Formats: sequence, C-alpha cells, structure tokens
Amino acid sequence: MARGNEVVKEVEWRIKVEEDETLQKTVVGCIWAVTAGVALKLCKFVKKAWELGVNDPRKFIHCLKVGIALSAVSLFYYWKPLYDGVGGNAMWAVMTVVVVFEYTAGATICKTVNRMFGTSLAGFLGIGVHWVASRAGEQWEPVIVGVSLFLLASAATFSRFIPTLKARFDYGILIFILTFSLVSVSGYRVDELLVMAQYRICTIIIGSILCIIISVIIRPIWAGFELFVLVTGNLDKLANSLQCCVAQYFGGSEASEDSDEMSDKKLLGYKCVLSSKATEETMANFARWEPAHGRFNFRHPWRQYVKIGASMRSCASCLDALIGCINSDNQASDDMKKNMSSISMKLGANCASVIRELATTIRKMAKSSKLDILVTDMNSAAQELRSLLNPYPNLVNAPSHNAKISTQTETASPDDQAAKIEIPLMEIIQVVTVASLLIEIVARVEGIVENVEELSVLANFQAEMCVKSKQHTSDSKVSPDQQNDDDPLDTPNGLRYTIYIYMRSTLHI
Amino acid sequence: MARGNEVVKEVEWRIKVEEDETLQKTVVGCIWAVTAGVALKLCKFVKKAWELGVNDPRKFIHCLKVGIALSAVSLFYYWKPLYDGVGGNAMWAVMTVVVVFEYTAGATICKTVNRMFGTSLAGFLGIGVHWVASRAGEQWEPVIVGVSLFLLASAATFSRFIPTLKARFDYGILIFILTFSLVSVSGYRVDELLVMAQYRICTIIIGSILCIIISVIIRPIWAGFELFVLVTGNLDKLANSLQCCVAQYFGGSEASEDSDEMSDKKLLGYKCVLSSKATEETMANFARWEPAHGRFNFRHPWRQYVKIGASMRSCASCLDALIGCINSDNQASDDMKKNMSSISMKLGANCASVIRELATTIRKMAKSSKLDILVTDMNSAAQELRSLLNPYPNLVNAPSHNAKISTQTETASPDDQAAKIEIPLMEIIQVVTVASLLIEIVARVEGIVENVEELSVLANFQAEMCVKSKQHTSDSKVSPDQQNDDDPLDTPNGLRYTIYIYMRSTLHI
Repeated sequence: MARGNEVVKEVEWRIKVEEDETLQKTVVGCIWAVTAGVALKLCKFVKKAWELGVNDPRKFIHCLKVGIALSAVSLFYYWKPLYDGVGGNAMWAVMTVVVVFEYTAGATICKTVNRMFGTSLAGFLGIGVHWVASRAGEQWEPVIVGVSLFLLASAATFSRFIPTLKARFDYGILIFILTFSLVSVSGYRVDELLVMAQYRICTIIIGSILCIIISVIIRPIWAGFELFVLVTGNLDKLANSLQCCVAQYFGGSEASEDSDEMSDKKLLGYKCVLSSKATEETMANFARWEPAHGRFNFRHPWRQYVKIGASMRSCASCLDALIGCINSDNQASDDMKKNMSSISMKLGANCASVIRELATTIRKMAKSSKLDILVTDMNSAAQELRSLLNPYPNLVNAPSHNAKISTQTETASPDDQAAKIEIPLMEIIQVVTVASLLIEIVARVEGIVENVEELSVLANFQAEMCVKSKQHTSDSKVSPDQQNDDDPLDTPNGLRYTIYIYMRSTLHI
Repeated sequence: MARGNEVVKEVEWRIKVEEDETLQKTVVGCIWAVTAGVALKLCKFVKKAWELGVNDPRKFIHCLKVGIALSAVSLFYYWKPLYDGVGGNAMWAVMTVVVVFEYTAGATICKTVNRMFGTSLAGFLGIGVHWVASRAGEQWEPVIVGVSLFLLASAATFSRFIPTLKARFDYGILIFILTFSLVSVSGYRVDELLVMAQYRICTIIIGSILCIIISVIIRPIWAGFELFVLVTGNLDKLANSLQCCVAQYFGGSEASEDSDEMSDKKLLGYKCVLSSKATEETMANFARWEPAHGRFNFRHPWRQYVKIGASMRSCASCLDALIGCINSDNQASDDMKKNMSSISMKLGANCASVIRELATTIRKMAKSSKLDILVTDMNSAAQELRSLLNPYPNLVNAPSHNAKISTQTETASPDDQAAKIEIPLMEIIQVVTVASLLIEIVARVEGIVENVEELSVLANFQAEMCVKSKQHTSDSKVSPDQQNDDDPLDTPNGLRYTIYIYMRSTLHI
C-alpha cells in the first residue's frame, strides 16, 4: 500500500514536473518568439535605413559632417585655454552648431546669417531696454521690461506671418525673440549683462562660422545644384512619360522596347513632377543664400526654376488627364487609332524632344541651336494632327471601317448613303480626346519653353557654339566642373545623368 | 573803383548765397523725397500686414498668446521666490516657450512632447556616458566622451532622414543631439552635473506645460479643425469650379448669374486644391498629437483627409486640362454645343452636387442619405452623355448644321449624299474632348466618394437620421459646437460657411 502510494506520488510528481517543463517551454518559446519578432522588425528597419543611405551616400557624409562639427566645437570644453576664454558660454557655440547645421549649404548659411543678425540686433535692443528700465527705478523696471517684451514679442511673432519675411527671415525673427527675452529679462538678475551678451554673441558667431566652413568645404551639398538637378531630372521624366504614354497607346505593347516594369516606371515619372512643388520652393529659398559655386553665380535666377517647375506641373496635370482617358472604359476603334498613330507618335516624340532639349539647355547653360527647329517641328506636327482631324472623310474612308458600316447598313436600311453617316462617335471619342489633349500639351510645352528662354536671358546663357568653342580653345583653363559636365550631358538621357551625378557625388570630382 | 569792387563783391556774395540756398533746397528736397518714399513703402507694408491680420484675426490672437506666455514665464526672473528656486536655469523655461510655441495646438503639443522626451532621454544618456568616462581616468575621459558624441550625433542625424521618424520626431531628435552634447561635454567642466541636469529638465518641463496650457485654453487653433475646414472648403471650391466651368462653356455668358470677377474667382478655385498638398500633410501630422476636441476623437483618422485631398487633386488636374482645352483656339460649332449643352450642364451640376454632398457629409460627420441617389444620378447623366455621343446622326441632323452642309455641297459636288459625310471633325473635337473629360472627371469624383466613404467607416459616422433624431431628442444636452454646426452647414455654401467659421472664431462660440 505504502509502495503503491509512493508510486502514485512519483507519477504525480512526474506529471507535475512535465507540466512545469511544458509551461517553462511555452514561456521560453513565447519570449523567444517576441524577441525574434522585435529583432526581425528592427533588422528590417535598419536595412531600410541603410538602403536609404546607400541610395544617396551624401546622407552618410552629412551625418559625419555633423559629427565633425560637434567634435570640433566641443574643443571649447576640452581645451583649457579655449574654455578659460569663454567659460560656460561655450554652451552657445555647441547649441549653434546643433541647431544651425543643415543638409544643404544654403540652408546652413541662411540659418547662420539669420542667427547672427537676430542675436546681435536683439542683444543691442535688449541692452537698450534694460538700460532705460534700470534708470526708471526699481519699482518700474519689471513693468517697463515686461511691457516691452510683450509688445516686441507679439509684433515679431506677427511678422512671421508675412510671406516675404517668412521665406527669408523666419528663423532670424525666432532668434530675435529668444535673445531679446533672455537679455532683457535676465538683465533684471544678472549684473554684468554687457559682458555676458558680448561672450554669447562671440560664441554664437564662432559656432556659426565653424558650421559655414564645414558645410561649404567638406563635400558641400548646394541647394542650388539640387534644385538644378531636380528640375532637369523632372524635365526628363516628363519627356519620358509623355513619349511612353503615346507610344503605349498608339503603338501597342510591341512598340515598347523596355520591360513592363521599366516602362511602367517611365510612364509614372510625371507623378514626381506633380509632387515636387514644395521641394522646389524650399530649395530656391535656400539657394539664394549660397555663394557662387560651380557654374552658378551668386545672383543666379533661382526663382525662375520654380516658374519652370510650375509650367511643368501644368503640363503634367494635362498628361495625367490624358493617361486617365486612355485607361478609361471607352476603347477606340483600331482603324481610327492606326490612322492617327504615326502622326500622334511623331507629335509625342517631338514634344519629348523639345522637353529633353530644354533639359539639355539648362544643363549646358547654353542657348540651344536646335530648340527653334524642334519647336517648329512640334508645332507643325500638331498642325498635321489638326489637319488630319479636319476633313472627316480621312477617317471614314478607312477600308475596314467602311466595311463595318456597310454590313450595318445592309441589314438596317435601304438608304445606303444616308446610313453612312451613322458612325458611332463613341468609337472615335477616345482617339479624338487623346489628340485634343496632345494638342493642349503642345501649348503647355510652349509655356515651359518660354520660361526656359526667360531663364536663359536672366542667367546670360551664351549661344551653344560660343560655349563649345570656348571649351575647345581653353581646355587647360576649364574648371573640373565644366570638364566633367560637357561629356555626359551631351546625351540628355535621364539614367546616364543620374549615374553621372551619383559618380560625381561619390568620387567628389 | 573801390565802390565798383564793392558792388561786384556784393553781387558775387548774393550769387553765392543764392547758389547755396538752391543747393540747400535741393538737398532738403532730396531728403524729403527719400523719407517720403521710405515712409510710403513702410505704410504700404504695414497696411498689407494689417490686412493679413484683419482677414484672419486668429493671427493677432496668436501673437497676443505668445506675448502672454513669455510674460508669464519671465516671472521666473521677476518673482524672487521663483528665481531662488531655479536660478539661472530659468533661461531654459524662457527658451522653451519661445521655441516651442506654435500657431496650432497640435504643433505646440508635438514640439513640447518631443522636447521633453528628447531632453530627458539625452540627459540620462549623457550622464551615463559622463559617469563611464569619469571612471576611465582623466586621460581617457575626453576621448570616450568625444567618440560617443561623434557616433551618437551622427546616428541621430541620420535617423532624421528616415521618413517615418522625420514626420513625428524630427524636433525631438534635434533636441536629443543638443542636450546630449551639452550634458556629456559640459560634464567635463561642470561639477554638479546631476543637479544642473535636474534643474534644466524641470524648467523645460515647466515651460512646456505653460505652452500647452496657454495654447489649448486661450482660443485654441486646432490643426485637426484647420485640416477639416481646408478639405471641406476645397471640396466646395472644386464643385464651384467644375459647375462654373461647364456652365460658362455650354451656357455662354448669359448663364452666369454672378459678376465676371466673382465667376472668375469661382472658376479658379480648383487651383487652391492643386496647391494645398503640403499644408494638408503638415496639418495631418500635427493633428494626431491633439487631444479630443469638438467633435473629433483623439484617434480621428486624419490621414484619410490627406487621401481625400489626393483624390481631389487628381480630379482638379483633370479639370485643369478641361479648362485648358476650353480656352484653346479650336472653337466648337454652336449646334453641336447646343445639342450637348443640356446634358453636359446637367452632368456638371450633378458632379458638383455629389462633391458638395461629400463636403456636407464630412461637415456633419453623418452618412448622407442622399449621396447614393446623387451618385446614381451622376452616373446616369454620364451614361446619357455617352449615349448621346453614340449614334452620330443626333449631331448631324441638327437643323442649322444640315443647312450649312447643303450650302457647301451645292457649290462643291453633285454627289449630295456622299458629301454629307464631310463634316469637319475639327468643329466637334472640342466638344467631344470636353464631354470625354467630363466623363473622366465623373470617374475621379467616384474616387473622392470612395475615400469619403472610407473616412465615414474609419471615423464611425452615423446615419444622418440618427444624428438628427439624437439632436432633436437631446437638445438640452448637445454641446454648443453641435448646436451651431447644424444650421449653417445645412446649405453647403462655401461663402456662408466661411462667414460662419469667421463668426465662430471671432465670437468664440
């Protein structure tokens, strides 16, 4: 019996141990699963982030630049002679570097200049107000300082709503409010206000200058150049989309030489054009703070690129409607399509050539000799399309269409001639719409041409011949920038240009 | 002789005096002119700025709020017990208020939360690194701190490029870098680092909370509500533009009831839709930081408004192409226009009604009972337009057109019947394109409908009847918000709604 009890106990114990082990295993499994899940997510995130950097290595370089700037400015603390010079105010230099260092040189310069002027102006004003207040007696001092702070801060905040000020001096006004508050208010407690303000302005200026130097010297990323690449790249994308869309519609699937994925990517390139308004405006705002760099002068007409972008968007929105119509349910008759395909594809190709030539014009910064011819070609192709549409028989007399009509009429009506008129407009509506939108696109491409020509006047583009001959005669004198620009830009191919930009940024040529 | 000399001298003197007087007058005149010019420009600038504020009085109120927040936080300096508590660290409270106080409550909350968490996290990390470094001996301390600063700053800077982090935590990461640098680096010189960090975090939290309170309590401007008003307003603008454009084209000048200026403004309303992408995204990003307010929950699906905006833009770009085609040189024949005018205008009006109903749905936050009927109406009108285009004779048999053809044929050819086919397609191309684009617009309006329906599911819109009956039965319980919303929103009129919003913001109802 006792033995039997022992056996039962042992079995129970075993069951219990086994249960415990199962529970333990479950818990451990759960923990493992959760850990693995989190690790997997983290891995994916890191991989994505890494790809982001690999796709544009300049992002990595920017991060290193920030690290270098911060390490350099922290010498104010590590190196005793420097720390003895400025003391705790070294904090302001560190703060300046962190807040002011931006991705593009233009943004950094804009912020540093704003910070320096905002700080200096507010510093002087704050000291002035403090001086007046301290003369008014101890009772009135906080009142005068408080009222002036309230009024100036409110007014300065309001000025940030004014578009012209906001575009250029938004950060400066913020810093003005900040410094004025700190100086005027802390003047109530701090004794050596003038000395403090002096140190603070000095350290801010040192931090600012350090930022500008590092931002401009080590692999600078110019907002102007970015804008330039964005606009010319968008022109190429628009040209590709336009040509691809017309070719796909009229030429059918056999017309496209690229794979499906590639041609889809090409087709949807215009979406980038539609969505790059904000980026263009930001870049143009920053670009005007930049000094002369590469082939751009200090007063390069950056606003004109924004205008070109706007005219591109107007063209892209028309293309969007065109692609929408093509994808709609109404299918056009094949005869009609065939009839118009050659001239439409020619018009599409001509439009694309004009847009590509515009991109080349901007890239080479030289007035194109071919542009006028291309525009004339485009207009004459548009005229041809118009005249093809003009006398209706052109379309009706297409052989198979005629046959179709006659089969209809045989059964329907004895009056053959009158019945011929009954051509379903539904069958031609899509082709007519596509043609009409193509003609509208031509008009909008002319808008881009006008804007680019305005740019060529504003930026003093020289005639292409002059540029070429200059480059031939003074080959030894040209900057590496120009030397490298000439060759790859000769063929305005988006992909090659992207590779070129990438190579350029990687090799720092 | 001496007398003569004297006379000459006097004359010379007089001439000199007169010359001096002329010079003086010229200089004074110049100064006056310059002063007047500057004053005039300044006056114009101030007038413009004033108008900016008068058009949206909330801007004035925001400025006053900033003034109040700054005056409140400067009590840290003026009021001795407070100053004794935190000392010079009061500076951080002032700085927080200046930097963090934004126009919308959402933006302010986003920045304060980012600032508080960024500061705290970086503070702890910085103290940790400082502790490790101080254990490593005096020689290694700057190396460890410097390397960790370099690595962390670079990594944090890189994380600002990752879109998901950038949208929500950009400011927090910036503050993280700032605080980490200040704490870890200044730890090398400052003795009581822990006390300093504690004071600093405390003052930053006090400043942040002050900002949130003032931003949320005194006439709050909610980013979510702004987004809501922007999207519904844009829907109305799109509807007006569409209806106005179709009415102007088909109805001619006599159709428009408004003045020219008014109808031009209506017609171009869609441009606002095209250009509000950036604003919508910013507002949606800030809106999700806001607590429940008005009729919006904490987790209101703000991203869906961005989607609705995108589908609106797709519709607006089609409308842009339509307006471009209407303004092109090809003029349509009047007969054709007349033939199609009634159905096209009906379709335009139907589309506009659907869009307006969508705006009303969003405004009332109640599923519309009419929407399905309106969409069916719109689709049947589109079908009608399609079927009108289908059998061509509808168009050819218009009386005056027939007459025109017969006059042509009398002189041209003896074969009357065959000649009837020679109808210049050029004359119908514009009308056909307009019709085709209208049909495309219908398809895109359906895209907006889908997105709004998705919103109504995500945000749990109730059926209209429920909302009305609820409001009738519990009239005493409804919030002033709902009470005021019901009446003016019943007629989805853009102008009235704007006035309502304005009244609401002015009277703070």
